[in-house]
Amino acid sequence: MATQGQVITCKAAVAYEPNKPLVIEDVQVAPPQAGEVRIKILYTALCHTDAYTWSGKDPEGLFPCILGHEAAGIVESVGEGVTEVQPGDHVIPCYQAECRECKFCKSGKTNLCGKVRSATGVGVMMNDRKSRFSVNGKPIYHFMGTSTFSQYTVVHDVSVAKIDPNAPLEKVCLLGCGVPTGLGAVWNTAKVEPGSNVAIFGLGTVGLAVAEGAKTAGASRIIGIDIDSKKYETAKKFGVNEFVNPKDHNKPIQEVIVELTDGGVDYSFECIGNVSVMRAALECCHKGWGTSVIVGVAASGQEISTRPFQLVTGRVWKGTAFGGFKSRTQVPWLVEKYMKNEIKVDEYITHNLSLGEINKAFDLLHEGTCLRCVLDTSE
Amino acid sequence: MATQGQVITCKAAVAYEPNKPLVIEDVQVAPPQAGEVRIKILYTALCHTDAYTWSGKDPEGLFPCILGHEAAGIVESVGEGVTEVQPGDHVIPCYQAECRECKFCKSGKTNLCGKVRSATGVGVMMNDRKSRFSVNGKPIYHFMGTSTFSQYTVVHDVSVAKIDPNAPLEKVCLLGCGVPTGLGAVWNTAKVEPGSNVAIFGLGTVGLAVAEGAKTAGASRIIGIDIDSKKYETAKKFGVNEFVNPKDHNKPIQEVIVELTDGGVDYSFECIGNVSVMRAALECCHKGWGTSVIVGVAASGQEISTRPFQLVTGRVWKGTAFGGFKSRTQVPWLVEKYMKNEIKVDEYITHNLSLGEINKAFDLLHEGTCLRCVLDTSE
Ligand SMILES: NC(=O)c1ccc[n+]([C@@H]2O[C@H](COP(=O)([O-])OP(=O)(O)OC[C@H]3O[C@@H](n4cnc5c(N)ncnc54)[C@H](O)[C@@H]3O)[C@@H](O)[C@H]2O)c1
Ligand SMILES: NC(=O)c1ccc[n+]([C@@H]2O[C@H](COP(=O)([O-])OP(=O)(O)OC[C@H]3O[C@@H](n4cnc5c(N)ncnc54)[C@H](O)[C@@H]3O)[C@@H](O)[C@H]2O)c1
Ligand SMILES: [Zn+2]
Ligand SMILES: [Zn+2]
Ligand SMILES: [Zn+2]
Ligand SMILES: [Zn+2]
Repeated sequence: MATQGQVITCKAAVAYEPNKPLVIEDVQVAPPQAGEVRIKILYTALCHTDAYTWSGKDPEGLFPCILGHEAAGIVESVGEGVTEVQPGDHVIPCYQAECRECKFCKSGKTNLCGKVRSATGVGVMMNDRKSRFSVNGKPIYHFMGTSTFSQYTVVHDVSVAKIDPNAPLEKVCLLGCGVPTGLGAVWNTAKVEPGSNVAIFGLGTVGLAVAEGAKTAGASRIIGIDIDSKKYETAKKFGVNEFVNPKDHNKPIQEVIVELTDGGVDYSFECIGNVSVMRAALECCHKGWGTSVIVGVAASGQEISTRPFQLVTGRVWKGTAFGGFKSRTQVPWLVEKYMKNEIKVDEYITHNLSLGEINKAFDLLHEGTCLRCVLDTSE
Repeated sequence: MATQGQVITCKAAVAYEPNKPLVIEDVQVAPPQAGEVRIKILYTALCHTDAYTWSGKDPEGLFPCILGHEAAGIVESVGEGVTEVQPGDHVIPCYQAECRECKFCKSGKTNLCGKVRSATGVGVMMNDRKSRFSVNGKPIYHFMGTSTFSQYTVVHDVSVAKIDPNAPLEKVCLLGCGVPTGLGAVWNTAKVEPGSNVAIFGLGTVGLAVAEGAKTAGASRIIGIDIDSKKYETAKKFGVNEFVNPKDHNKPIQEVIVELTDGGVDYSFECIGNVSVMRAALECCHKGWGTSVIVGVAASGQEISTRPFQLVTGRVWKGTAFGGFKSRTQVPWLVEKYMKNEIKVDEYITHNLSLGEINKAFDLLHEGTCLRCVLDTSE
């Protein structure tokens, strides 16, 4: 390719400062170094983690940076030693890396990977601990090892999932974060069995994906809980068959759910990021075996709490990151499942905009009607 | 038997008021009603739960009562409909019932049982919701459905484990609480695998039983943590092969353990009942898979807390009651294991006294040198 080995100048949405509108800039993207992959991003969606860091509430957020971590694209060029992908491959960048060599990857017990975290956590690349992005010579930090709010990005090879070239990138970009997180929370983390009762707190994209996961796992009662009653209509399509709005009750929501289910649910999922809801989600679980999975990401510094008796009497408190899916191995498998119509993806996309309209897309994130907004980066 | 169907007058240690010495009294023990069993208690040990309720800190504690729940004896008589034990059977009373019929028992997921809880929780028997104990006509409450600080007690049939008549009752009485709790926390709740790293907070009877459980499960590093360094000598015999005294370090104990184990332990157990240690026990677990089991019982009203990120990054928080053992089914099996020298019991008995010396035994409980004190009720 003509661009290989060259600096590429392209459009990207730069977050210069917390809480200030992103700026569409001409950004210089350096060529990939050893173990790196430069990807032409075609579509990117927005997720709450982007909004959280952008808001300035994330103490680890670094500015200026290029946000974005739910996307799909095509490999433009690869650095030295990269063997698993080549230019032209269709890929999904993965903020959870999978190196297959580290203590984590080899444990067989987790999808977390330790290989590049020391760099991705501080907005740089492992090789030289520098950024590949710059504007007029000034470096711009990477974000989550993905930085997909750009027409081109550079990621570590352990963070790239190669997918079926026939998959529609404008849809499967969602398989980079929210949808797998919800499905995997059910399939991998909770391991919901047929006939189970399930409570889902928060019916955004993640909560709806939990509902779909629970339905395919054979759960019988799937109770959705949201402070916005409009969510129930959509949620039904994803498997939710009962709905509770905490605002309709004047007692703690955990008590409402315990009564409704004769002692509590078998599994609960917090898909909001609210620590008091996390507590309610644990406490609405059935004594003896109820398992609660924290999926939502709480603001920094906030803590969860409960009486230890809740655990001594058999409840289990867990959490999940990217639904426990091994990214490079399992994202392609999720794409296959989508291609075979075994999982929904299209149904989460409520809005389509261009990269240039990204600030409008952030506004939409906070509106009740938006699940996922997909940005076309070509426009 | 001559006593069958009769009220028996015998000696018992009555707790009339919180924190006041127990009084050895002549107590009337009514005959067992339908579904009940009257047991001649031969040996009873003391456990911290007795001391906790006696202290008055347990808001559900009822006075006057007869405490005690770690004991062994012989069935004196049975009430109507009792088929699984008969007079003369050697038994261990079980504060965790096992009815084999309720939602809990049938779930296959827990050792908790719901059958008699509504009565045992308030110090009475199910049949007539009254006590079988009285002193000069005034009722004395039952405790934990066992009340073993008495020469005779009445329990529900679902709370009696029939054991090998050759087992020495003065030893196996310990299989009524502390030892199974520790072993089961490892075998049933955590399911420790060979080669695991384990941290045990608190090296009393329960912590030592956790150590033994971990050793038999093939754990490689078994780290004992106690503020009393003298505990290490004894703990070695139970499998502890490293020791840390938090007082020897000027940083949080979780950091000390994380450094010592290159990222944290695979399993940790809190065997103290201290909510801040419970947090430390969770946070010293390895990211991605570390599981922490709460075994200690905290004072009422106290809460555990942590940052949800601890769980989102793969740690699991659990608890255990009676080590997850199904009492009537598995206590006899534990007795068999003891008889085959597969588990220790004798080694936990540091003191032997008579029922009349029970107040001295309570004092010993708070001394560092006492693990279990067994009371002979015949004296
Ligand atoms: N663990 C992970 O790997 C991971 C991955 C992706 C997203 N997340 C997190 O998952 C969470 C959900 O993401 P999303 O995209 O679905 O968010 P969303 O904002 O679209 O959905 C949240 C829903 O919760 C509802 N809600 C808010 N407060 C509530 C309350 N007190 N009680 C009941 N319902 C309430 C809202 O009405 C909304 O429907 C976020 O915290 C996000 O950061 C975690
Ligand atoms: N979950 C259950 O079913 C169950 C059953 C039996 C007992 N328990 C509970 O288990 C706990 C332990 O019982 P035990 O009989 O072994 O008690 P114990 O008092 O004999 O042992 C506690 C140990 O913890 C140590 N310790 C105290 N504070 C400490 C700290 N801050 N850091 C480190 N070590 C500390 C003490 O020195 C002692 O060695 C109690 O809370 C008891 O109520 C629970
Ligand atoms: Zn996300
Ligand atoms: Zn790895
Ligand atoms: Zn006990
Ligand atoms: Zn039962």
